[in-house]
Amino acid sequence: MVANSGSLSPTWVVVSGGLTAPDGFQASGITAGLKASGKPDLSLLLAPEGAVCAGTFTTSVVRAACVDLCIERLQRRGGRVRAVLTNSGQANACTGDRGLIDSQRATQALADRLGLTAEEVLICSTGVIGVPIPMDILLAGIDPLASALSVDGGAAAATAILTTDLIDKQIALEASLGGRRVRIGGMAKGSGMIHPDMATMLGYLTCDAAVPAEQWQALVQRAVQRSFNAITVDGDTSTNDSFLAFAAGAPLPPDQLAALEEGVTQVAQHLARAIARDGEGATCLMDVRVDGAASEAEALRIARTVCGSSLVKTAIHGRDPNWGRIIAAAGRAGVEFDPQTVALWLGEHQLMAAGQPLPFDRSAASRYLRERAAGAYLQDDSVRIRLRVGDGPGQGQAWGCDLSDQYVRINADYTT
Amino acid sequence: MVANSGSLSPTWVVVSGGLTAPDGFQASGITAGLKASGKPDLSLLLAPEGAVCAGTFTTSVVRAACVDLCIERLQRRGGRVRAVLTNSGQANACTGDRGLIDSQRATQALADRLGLTAEEVLICSTGVIGVPIPMDILLAGIDPLASALSVDGGAAAATAILTTDLIDKQIALEASLGGRRVRIGGMAKGSGMIHPDMATMLGYLTCDAAVPAEQWQALVQRAVQRSFNAITVDGDTSTNDSFLAFAAGAPLPPDQLAALEEGVTQVAQHLARAIARDGEGATCLMDVRVDGAASEAEALRIARTVCGSSLVKTAIHGRDPNWGRIIAAAGRAGVEFDPQTVALWLGEHQLMAAGQPLPFDRSAASRYLRERAAGAYLQDDSVRIRLRVGDGPGQGQAWGCDLSDQYVRINADYTT
Repeated sequence: MVANSGSLSPTWVVVSGGLTAPDGFQASGITAGLKASGKPDLSLLLAPEGAVCAGTFTTSVVRAACVDLCIERLQRRGGRVRAVLTNSGQANACTGDRGLIDSQRATQALADRLGLTAEEVLICSTGVIGVPIPMDILLAGIDPLASALSVDGGAAAATAILTTDLIDKQIALEASLGGRRVRIGGMAKGSGMIHPDMATMLGYLTCDAAVPAEQWQALVQRAVQRSFNAITVDGDTSTNDSFLAFAAGAPLPPDQLAALEEGVTQVAQHLARAIARDGEGATCLMDVRVDGAASEAEALRIARTVCGSSLVKTAIHGRDPNWGRIIAAAGRAGVEFDPQTVALWLGEHQLMAAGQPLPFDRSAASRYLRERAAGAYLQDDSVRIRLRVGDGPGQGQAWGCDLSDQYVRINADYTT
Repeated sequence: MVANSGSLSPTWVVVSGGLTAPDGFQASGITAGLKASGKPDLSLLLAPEGAVCAGTFTTSVVRAACVDLCIERLQRRGGRVRAVLTNSGQANACTGDRGLIDSQRATQALADRLGLTAEEVLICSTGVIGVPIPMDILLAGIDPLASALSVDGGAAAATAILTTDLIDKQIALEASLGGRRVRIGGMAKGSGMIHPDMATMLGYLTCDAAVPAEQWQALVQRAVQRSFNAITVDGDTSTNDSFLAFAAGAPLPPDQLAALEEGVTQVAQHLARAIARDGEGATCLMDVRVDGAASEAEALRIARTVCGSSLVKTAIHGRDPNWGRIIAAAGRAGVEFDPQTVALWLGEHQLMAAGQPLPFDRSAASRYLRERAAGAYLQDDSVRIRLRVGDGPGQGQAWGCDLSDQYVRINADYTT
């Protein structure tokens, strides 16, 4: 493999190991007994000394106690934290004053066990809203969880953060940056913020190249904007949404930062797409690309609105190349564009040009939709919608999933 | 009946006649043949001389040609228009240059028949996007439509504007304002902007008291904000949404304007609720009231977000008093409030106080939801959710409907 210079785009290739693929990171996942199902429910990520953590969190004003704790500690320590504990089963949101007390107790116990200060430990919770964590069970799990820490623990950690997800979501990428091997790992959970009371999207990223804290935070925020903030299943932002990204190791030369950002963005986009694809009742991924907008922000806004439209989502589910719904959704995105410039493609099929509907092979377009939905999970089962809204420089991409009657049944039948 | 003074709130009572209940208005509805189903599809409203019309329209940048025509003529004539033609079956949206030409031809033909100028005639279209109006059929319908005009024509007009609505939507109210009988009538169509390609909400209002054009436009806009803009079924704003409100007759004294606005708002709210209740697949109306916000706009925003949440909507459909979903939706509305002040009621059942969940009779709350959904259409089948988010003066109310698997099936199975 030829080492890339900073001016060339590096090739990021998939490697195994997930979150613990990057050097120096350890992780673990165990069954502590927080879930009635008996599935793994306690997860730990330990970053090497000197690590810097960037975080982005739910924009909801109704936040779980653990989110407030993470935000405060990251701010106070300028990102210099070392570990994240994740409990699945109870979201610890809307649990009153005891929510914060429980979060503090859990992190203190883990810090004592690991020889860290409590301030260096974060906590993420996911599960049922309004139900407190059974603290005796969680605290009894701290020692076995820490004992299980391993440089091969990525997969165990990725399993223990899941709630109603159908599959685990992890990936690792590797590239040569300026002659040096750099790895980025990641894991996530969530079915697109849509689960009944399991309303959480959690994401974690590790990187074995150090980046100064402020630059890392800015880089991570840009990547999140193009990944986790570009997916929608039903628009229901959760009380617990969190993304935590660690960078640790030898510093990366500044001329390699753009290449690193590309890798971070790819990892984040892989995890985000996996969440959208795992949306409750979904049979396919929707991949919406908008170009020609005045700015990236406006392109993203249109793409997200199309992805979030119930009418578009049900049309895709019905394998119906119903372009009228796509263009109507774009029109209400709150972005000014000239309808007379609009062009629209569904896969290879162009459905509109210059704002006018084109004659197209309706049965072939419908077959395209049927074939996508029949794809196996890891193959290309994404329905590609491309929309041009002018000749501006703004491009954006968003992901979602179709809306099925299964979604409604899952969410309506979730009994109290 | 005692005549109300301007300072007392008048009692508006329901009277028959719908759109033509107010003096001087005539309407008609016929089957011209625009719909394959053979149902009525051409509707006409004629206002008396001197009428003033206020209009509000879709905010989508992708607008049907008829919307552009209405906006232009209302502006040019300062609201002094006389008639509205409505064709149902084809939305005349995304039909290219011929869309505007067809709208102009239709209004010109009607103007010639009625002895008006084309500029005094508006047109609303509803139906399939991307399909042009069969103009020979529409033009052949103009003469019988005009011949059918009648002061009792409100019901016929209300039927001819429907597309996939299950029932017609009309009402008329009467009150004594300053000793004078005033009537307000209205009709609407739409199942909450959610119909496949029948993506249109249309509303019409008549009033037999004259109000100066600028005051009338402002009054109507406030009423729309509290009615048609406060309903959501799936958030899909259409290309054709229009609301047209006519006022004509003897001028009303300024001190009676507030009382009139109350009546206009009641008519608009009745029609808006009827649209939400007729949402595809809906089994009940959701009535969300928010108080304690900093402003009415913020209260409305929270109420609308709760109404639009797929998780809340599916919980209601499942008869599940799942307060966590309601509070999570409120939290992501983009409005700042202190979660520690939140109180929540479902019907008579208080579920939260001071931001903390309360113990409540879960089976009674679930029974409340089951009973509401079992209600007959015209009885009280609304699920009432009340949310207090502080002690500010802002109050707002919004309406929606539950989300059923039937909704998905209707929209996914709508075949090409």
